Amino acid sequence: MSQSARTFNPGKMQYRFLGRTGLKVSALSFGSWVTVGGQVGQDTSKKCMLEAWNNGVNYFDTAEVYASGECEKVFGQALKELNFKRSDIVVSTKLFWGGPGPNDTGLSKKHLFEGMRASLKRLDLEYVDIVMAHRPDALTPMEEIVRAFTEIVQSGQALYWGTSEWKAHDIERAHHMAAVHHLIPPMCDQPQYNAFWRDRVEDELRPVLRNYGYGLTIWSPLDNGVLTGKYNDGIPQGSRLTGADAADSDKQNMINFGKALSTEAGQAKIAKVRKLTDMAKDLGCSTAQLALAWCLSNEQVSTVITGASRPEQVTENMKALDIYDIMKKDPSIKEKMDKILDNTPEAEELFGRWA
Amino acid sequence: MSQSARTFNPGKMQYRFLGRTGLKVSALSFGSWVTVGGQVGQDTSKKCMLEAWNNGVNYFDTAEVYASGECEKVFGQALKELNFKRSDIVVSTKLFWGGPGPNDTGLSKKHLFEGMRASLKRLDLEYVDIVMAHRPDALTPMEEIVRAFTEIVQSGQALYWGTSEWKAHDIERAHHMAAVHHLIPPMCDQPQYNAFWRDRVEDELRPVLRNYGYGLTIWSPLDNGVLTGKYNDGIPQGSRLTGADAADSDKQNMINFGKALSTEAGQAKIAKVRKLTDMAKDLGCSTAQLALAWCLSNEQVSTVITGASRPEQVTENMKALDIYDIMKKDPSIKEKMDKILDNTPEAEELFGRWA
Amino acid sequence: MSQSARTFNPGKMQYRFLGRTGLKVSALSFGSWVTVGGQVGQDTSKKCMLEAWNNGVNYFDTAEVYASGECEKVFGQALKELNFKRSDIVVSTKLFWGGPGPNDTGLSKKHLFEGMRASLKRLDLEYVDIVMAHRPDALTPMEEIVRAFTEIVQSGQALYWGTSEWKAHDIERAHHMAAVHHLIPPMCDQPQYNAFWRDRVEDELRPVLRNYGYGLTIWSPLDNGVLTGKYNDGIPQGSRLTGADAADSDKQNMINFGKALSTEAGQAKIAKVRKLTDMAKDLGCSTAQLALAWCLSNEQVSTVITGASRPEQVTENMKALDIYDIMKKDPSIKEKMDKILDNTPEAEELFGRWA
Amino acid sequence: MSQSARTFNPGKMQYRFLGRTGLKVSALSFGSWVTVGGQVGQDTSKKCMLEAWNNGVNYFDTAEVYASGECEKVFGQALKELNFKRSDIVVSTKLFWGGPGPNDTGLSKKHLFEGMRASLKRLDLEYVDIVMAHRPDALTPMEEIVRAFTEIVQSGQALYWGTSEWKAHDIERAHHMAAVHHLIPPMCDQPQYNAFWRDRVEDELRPVLRNYGYGLTIWSPLDNGVLTGKYNDGIPQGSRLTGADAADSDKQNMINFGKALSTEAGQAKIAKVRKLTDMAKDLGCSTAQLALAWCLSNEQVSTVITGASRPEQVTENMKALDIYDIMKKDPSIKEKMDKILDNTPEAEELFGRWA
Repeated sequence: MSQSARTFNPGKMQYRFLGRTGLKVSALSFGSWVTVGGQVGQDTSKKCMLEAWNNGVNYFDTAEVYASGECEKVFGQALKELNFKRSDIVVSTKLFWGGPGPNDTGLSKKHLFEGMRASLKRLDLEYVDIVMAHRPDALTPMEEIVRAFTEIVQSGQALYWGTSEWKAHDIERAHHMAAVHHLIPPMCDQPQYNAFWRDRVEDELRPVLRNYGYGLTIWSPLDNGVLTGKYNDGIPQGSRLTGADAADSDKQNMINFGKALSTEAGQAKIAKVRKLTDMAKDLGCSTAQLALAWCLSNEQVSTVITGASRPEQVTENMKALDIYDIMKKDPSIKEKMDKILDNTPEAEELFGRWA
Repeated sequence: MSQSARTFNPGKMQYRFLGRTGLKVSALSFGSWVTVGGQVGQDTSKKCMLEAWNNGVNYFDTAEVYASGECEKVFGQALKELNFKRSDIVVSTKLFWGGPGPNDTGLSKKHLFEGMRASLKRLDLEYVDIVMAHRPDALTPMEEIVRAFTEIVQSGQALYWGTSEWKAHDIERAHHMAAVHHLIPPMCDQPQYNAFWRDRVEDELRPVLRNYGYGLTIWSPLDNGVLTGKYNDGIPQGSRLTGADAADSDKQNMINFGKALSTEAGQAKIAKVRKLTDMAKDLGCSTAQLALAWCLSNEQVSTVITGASRPEQVTENMKALDIYDIMKKDPSIKEKMDKILDNTPEAEELFGRWA
Repeated sequence: MSQSARTFNPGKMQYRFLGRTGLKVSALSFGSWVTVGGQVGQDTSKKCMLEAWNNGVNYFDTAEVYASGECEKVFGQALKELNFKRSDIVVSTKLFWGGPGPNDTGLSKKHLFEGMRASLKRLDLEYVDIVMAHRPDALTPMEEIVRAFTEIVQSGQALYWGTSEWKAHDIERAHHMAAVHHLIPPMCDQPQYNAFWRDRVEDELRPVLRNYGYGLTIWSPLDNGVLTGKYNDGIPQGSRLTGADAADSDKQNMINFGKALSTEAGQAKIAKVRKLTDMAKDLGCSTAQLALAWCLSNEQVSTVITGASRPEQVTENMKALDIYDIMKKDPSIKEKMDKILDNTPEAEELFGRWA
Repeated sequence: MSQSARTFNPGKMQYRFLGRTGLKVSALSFGSWVTVGGQVGQDTSKKCMLEAWNNGVNYFDTAEVYASGECEKVFGQALKELNFKRSDIVVSTKLFWGGPGPNDTGLSKKHLFEGMRASLKRLDLEYVDIVMAHRPDALTPMEEIVRAFTEIVQSGQALYWGTSEWKAHDIERAHHMAAVHHLIPPMCDQPQYNAFWRDRVEDELRPVLRNYGYGLTIWSPLDNGVLTGKYNDGIPQGSRLTGADAADSDKQNMINFGKALSTEAGQAKIAKVRKLTDMAKDLGCSTAQLALAWCLSNEQVSTVITGASRPEQVTENMKALDIYDIMKKDPSIKEKMDKILDNTPEAEELFGRWA
């Protein structure tokens, strides 16, 4: 590695504001979940991250729980070795599950105080751009949670704070406590969002998107791979969706997900993916690219977090931006997709209205 | 009617606080929906209300939309003729649908200001005890809504204000706006709640029940009559659940409800009611009394609103208090019911914890 | 009665500020408890009130519960017939016990709203100067209580609000809620206070006397008559302290009080009174006058409420002001009394310090 | 000591939230008062702390005043040598008496600022989890006190702050000042609590337990040893409860306590302990274990602080958890104990109600 930081090259990348904030994130971004520090080795991780960077990705996401902290270590080491200029990247991590002790889990002041320090140490960073509450914690008062994140931000360990998989009610309450106690409110959520998982973003969160310009950094845009079309003809042996029940909860979730695909509802889903695959062929792209472009077409999404276990996957993912450009010019494509999906939430008509 | 106000006789009635307020309401109360001013004549309405009063009922509920305002007129006239002492009764009405004009619907300052006056005029009362927002209104800013209700309370037209069928997020936001702008927050919700409609009360609203001690005045405790057991052998011809499609939305809702009973899910529901009917026989009570007692056994319910088209129905309903007393002493009854119902929501364990 | 209002003649009366307020009340005042509307007839009540007025008394106290509302009627009628100039008198009433119904008792918004109106109607006044919460109500949230009194004050039905027999914690919380919600805090308490009942005023309430300049309008300065010396030789037959147990709680309290006098502790009390009686003789006054002067000598007391069943008693009571003047000039008198009483509370040394 | 931190083993321990906070503390905890740094040597202290840890204790309490600061030194050295993982332990200290100088005592900003630094230095810790005001200080304004603790928390020297032996009024005022000035309120109190000292916890503090979910870390659960039964047959010569009057206030307090045991009231206490000893025998446990289990059975107690001068005492104390489990299943045990004790405070019925 050279000693001077890498030059930033946006390429075709688009940048979007993270919700109401002034922070700009690449529309496609790089997530380390289930790959970095876990099933993917350090060298490959680094190559994937470099490929993302070369395509203009500036936002890199991780969490203290990923690979039990190992992910943050590899991820931080890669950032350092790749020598990205610090101000050119946006790094987020997420706190909630930090270990087995009674005070290692949840959003108590104690865990947030200690978890943030431990996370920065593993990442070998002075600060992250965004720290998120990885889940809501109904057993810790919201005032304590908001106060702890405020202290993290005020101490310079994070620039912004956000949430992940919180309900509208949780986010409203966080803003309520912040307003009443003169604290710093959260700015964005990291929800699951894809063509088959729409309600949280398109219904539940609508009031807070409107009221607070809440940002969205969405995960699982390909629905655990279903939207790549790779299960159109069944789940291959040895896939992460198969295998014996596992103690690891991430692994077990994947296996359960695989089982669900063989039910009637699962098969109906696959039938829809086949139709999307036909559309993708007509557009000259992959099913995955079409599915990512569908996510990008929701302009309330700040960034679509993509994962990869090979650099070539990153290259392929990035082409979704071209498809998104085509979809913007021809609205009938999204309309046709939504007709195939047949799952648009019936949401209250409230945009263009105030809080 | 004599010139001195009627003496209040609590009988066996239990009184509960309306959530966190200092107001006490009878555990069973009288609602005028679909009866008073509509399908039930003035004399019968009055007899029903007197029978309720004689059983210790102190809470009487109505709404501007019921029978297009006619309900409030008959209801208010009955209160006057029955000569109940004003401080001995708790009267609530609900505002949202006040007419066909562009400003007759919703929770704008204009409709709340004008609707409240019109309602009091129809009721011929100086003030109601509780005025409720009959539904949420996502098209009017919450600050305007809370401000309008605050002004109603401060002007002495209502003592408290509440909501009906609001989500946790709406209620949290109302409290947020009240705190920030130093206004008066809502104190209770009027949700549908019965053995077949549990999620709103037992899951969705749990955070606000905990955070705000939100009161609950629940409607449809018998699930449109299904929980009386009267449809155990099919819907009789001429029931309000049968007939040709109607323009009146309340009527159409009933007809749709009737149609739903013949689906597979509807039949599964009836099968459960049959088992409850067997339980009721063993306890020597009616299915309706058992179903009302089930509602009473949720101690977060401030009052169970019951309707009646005949005074004898009121008398019968009140006996649910005896069954409730039996259920308190023998917890296995509720356990058995919940096993039959098989629909207990999986809610976060947060009670005993603070917000 | 003449049509022009009576001229005010302060005589020897002293006026003190009601705590931190700008309101001035006579150091000795007239209370209607257990006399007006009850055991003392209307004419005598009026004569007593006139005698008080003629001695410079400007503060007259009543409560909704006294003689079940009858007291307020007689009291208000007397004020009207005596034709005192409204701005020359300070009238207080107290709300808490308004009747037998579930919402007739306590400090709910409903009872305060309805109770204040009913009280003003009985008094036939447009407003009182001070309305007090006759007791604390731990079952109604303090926010609701403070909000209700604020609305009473803002509507012009009372000029100030206060409390009676509240603990320091209750008063602190009322001020806390008032500050947070921008409401009007209470200004004074009406505690029992006399030479044998000192802890509430001289210990418990010290922090709020200091922090809020809380006013004190004290009742029972003669400890139910014990400090007149009239029980120095036993309780006479037919006294209100004797008799069979009674349903009326005020009466029963008196009987219990009488019983307590015959215990060892009661006899020790009487022994102390005998010594005070000796002191009074030396000073050329009655034991009662000495005991009232002792109350007046606590300059945190805004006013000493005295009762009377005959106008001559009023005349006698007023002479306590002369004794108080003597005591101010010769501090050894109070020192000698406190030595006899031997019950000065060990209170924290906090006066002259801030909150 | 090995270089990697000790692994945490919860064993049978129960963890409870510290009141409303998200912090979890072991139901039984370890206190250093009158032992560590004082009458008990460093080695034994360390062995006691290790034995506590091995039983799942995660909460360790000390104070700047204990053994004039020597306690914190030995305590901190022991924590370091025992190599407990920092995030696995909860450490509290208490500030009030820091030395003989005019600014060494009390809760002035100056003493809190300087005392906190000195305490951390003695403990050789970067931060404590909880810092407490060891007593109320009526001579320093509450705003100054709350502001000083807020600055301690915001600077990362403590995660939470609490109080010790404060009255309800003091705690209410601290929350009042925190709300008005947007500061951080205290979260818990450390009161004395045991079968003979109940009023503070079961009466005085009830409103703040309810209003603020105030946590309780209770001290002296065995009433200076009386509840071990060791004085059932008199105080042995050489006990810390005997001896000539001493200049050291802790020692003098013990001697006074010993003297009190020989009064009539003291003997009545011992008579009750003898009955508890009989109950303990029937349950197959020690009197001390029964008395600790009695404290645990009050679920508003966050943790029962136990002291020990020998590791075997720690082992014995921990068995109280088994007795507590038995008491939970058989409520008649606690009922029988309360009947023997005959000192249940008559407290207002306010739980289940809000503030």
